[in-house]
Amino acid sequence: MPAEVPVLDLSVSSVELTQQLCDIASVSGDEARIADAIEASLEGLGHLTIVRDGDTVVASTSLGRAQRVIIAGHIDTVPINGNVPTRFEERDGQAMLWGRGTVDMKGGVAVQLKLAAELTDPIVDITWMWYDNEEVASDLNGLGRLARNRPDLFVGDFAILGEPSNAGVEGGCNGTLRVHVSAHGKRSHAARSWVGVNAIHAISPVLATLASYTPREVEVDGLVYREGVNAVGITGGVAGNVIPDLVTVEVNYRFAPSRTGAEALAHLEELFSGFEVVQTDVAEGARPGLDAPIAQDFLAAVGGTPAPKYGWTDVARFSALGVPAVNYGPGDPLLAHADDERVPLAHIEDCERGLRAWLTGPDGR
Amino acid sequence: MPAEVPVLDLSVSSVELTQQLCDIASVSGDEARIADAIEASLEGLGHLTIVRDGDTVVASTSLGRAQRVIIAGHIDTVPINGNVPTRFEERDGQAMLWGRGTVDMKGGVAVQLKLAAELTDPIVDITWMWYDNEEVASDLNGLGRLARNRPDLFVGDFAILGEPSNAGVEGGCNGTLRVHVSAHGKRSHAARSWVGVNAIHAISPVLATLASYTPREVEVDGLVYREGVNAVGITGGVAGNVIPDLVTVEVNYRFAPSRTGAEALAHLEELFSGFEVVQTDVAEGARPGLDAPIAQDFLAAVGGTPAPKYGWTDVARFSALGVPAVNYGPGDPLLAHADDERVPLAHIEDCERGLRAWLTGPDGR
Repeated sequence: MPAEVPVLDLSVSSVELTQQLCDIASVSGDEARIADAIEASLEGLGHLTIVRDGDTVVASTSLGRAQRVIIAGHIDTVPINGNVPTRFEERDGQAMLWGRGTVDMKGGVAVQLKLAAELTDPIVDITWMWYDNEEVASDLNGLGRLARNRPDLFVGDFAILGEPSNAGVEGGCNGTLRVHVSAHGKRSHAARSWVGVNAIHAISPVLATLASYTPREVEVDGLVYREGVNAVGITGGVAGNVIPDLVTVEVNYRFAPSRTGAEALAHLEELFSGFEVVQTDVAEGARPGLDAPIAQDFLAAVGGTPAPKYGWTDVARFSALGVPAVNYGPGDPLLAHADDERVPLAHIEDCERGLRAWLTGPDGR
Repeated sequence: MPAEVPVLDLSVSSVELTQQLCDIASVSGDEARIADAIEASLEGLGHLTIVRDGDTVVASTSLGRAQRVIIAGHIDTVPINGNVPTRFEERDGQAMLWGRGTVDMKGGVAVQLKLAAELTDPIVDITWMWYDNEEVASDLNGLGRLARNRPDLFVGDFAILGEPSNAGVEGGCNGTLRVHVSAHGKRSHAARSWVGVNAIHAISPVLATLASYTPREVEVDGLVYREGVNAVGITGGVAGNVIPDLVTVEVNYRFAPSRTGAEALAHLEELFSGFEVVQTDVAEGARPGLDAPIAQDFLAAVGGTPAPKYGWTDVARFSALGVPAVNYGPGDPLLAHADDERVPLAHIEDCERGLRAWLTGPDGR
């Protein structure tokens, strides 16, 4: 007998739907049940065409509108730590839903799912995407897999990711580059250190450069991105009586989306000139794309002042495919992955109101 | 049936005896067979009183001489790596014995054992000591254990350790101190590094101090000791996307024997003022003690110019007990523990000749 598919009730409020979604555990790699539930909840809605790819569910309208918007959210969470099932509790005068996934990002998914069901006649065509494996290695990412399997689904004029952004619009994202910066020396017994060359001493200028570095603040399409160049790890040493012949600093550069990954690498190579610099990981940033008329309409409808997104998110995947993309979702990103993860209910309601206002147009159809 | 005790033939040359000793494997902790063999080889020699303490063997004369000399060597080796049994092979025109223990330090033990058996009428009383567990943690050291169990055996006017010194006299030894120098910071996500405080960046002045440090050269009792202050390890970092809140540098200070361990610590605390400095390990140095008349006699008999010993050795144990001590043994200390460990046969013969000349006196009795 196959496992029972949990039932989602899309007629309840987006707050209640957030709780229903959170209480279906869906740690990365274990999203089949929640994907089944999402797929089942949309079955029989005549205005949506459903595509299933692994544990990713896509629901599209085909209304012949002049423009198409992609609205996406991931359905996996980081591991649960005693914080499921969720609970409602006030904090600092704010009604909150507490538990894993409330911020990252089932509040956003609930809003999307409710609107997908209810908006039978939006002013733009919409491709809704709920995908798996966002919280793990990039090569497992469900959105990436879908882009490889079904590139046709990524045709659109604008994209919105429901990642937590305090119910404001956060545009684009910084890129992230990791390199290993190494210094080499020559081993010797520590009792005769002058016979060797100490690699840890030799790396000293690299740390001095990092300590005195002033990160840039770069305006891109009207938003100011703050960069950062940081050592995130250092390791060296052979034994307590040996002069070390190798030390490696792992440096993480968060770079503004006006710079490519290759340009970011060139910057670090120049900064650490004279040292071995080896790239270990790179993800391009994404320009905010807020200059497009469709983005301006969206901003006007949801209100507020857009801000830059500092953390890397999947908006960069859309950006790389030529689709301008922003983050817009309930919850404080600083609480994502925290054991006291919690979302203000007002954020969920605001996001639902904002998206609904934009998608139904000025005359509220 | 008890395991057979290997037989040592003390009538052969000290070179051949070195080979016999090396071919009895005696990695630290496994010295019972070689200690049994040494003890058995001395049995029945009327001029020696034998004491056994664990796997340490002591053989003393009691001739009522005005002075007593302690001559000691450890019988353990670091692990064998395919280099036992030993073999004779010429290198660069020098006849060599190759294999584990040839340098560190069964060549020295062979010379001592042969002379212990043959010198029935030396000009000083002699306490010969062959001890276990020198190559492992200090608290296992057989000489240290013997000093605790039988302090009476450590009464003497001068001590000679047969540690490798290229068949020259190396006086005293530097002390060694290890500390952990740490910097603290505050974790944050690397995408928002300005929220945190980077500990790896904060340790930068410590590496700069180490890189620019000029070690002292200190004359002690006529020998010049070269010091060293070195990072021997560094570790820090939480994850590739986290600003690290802790970094620790392990620093090893090899200090001249005119300085105490406490003074050495004070020097590092001053050097790294403003940082957390925690002592993890200390061993006092040993002054060369070459100003005593008995030491001068020894130097005159063996010839050559004494040099300082940089590496820490058990001479420091004698020094701490008030017995001046030197290193004098065959082999290049830089080859100790090496897989190509090898001793020039001439070193073994020179050390036997030097010790014999001194112990039998100017009239060669």
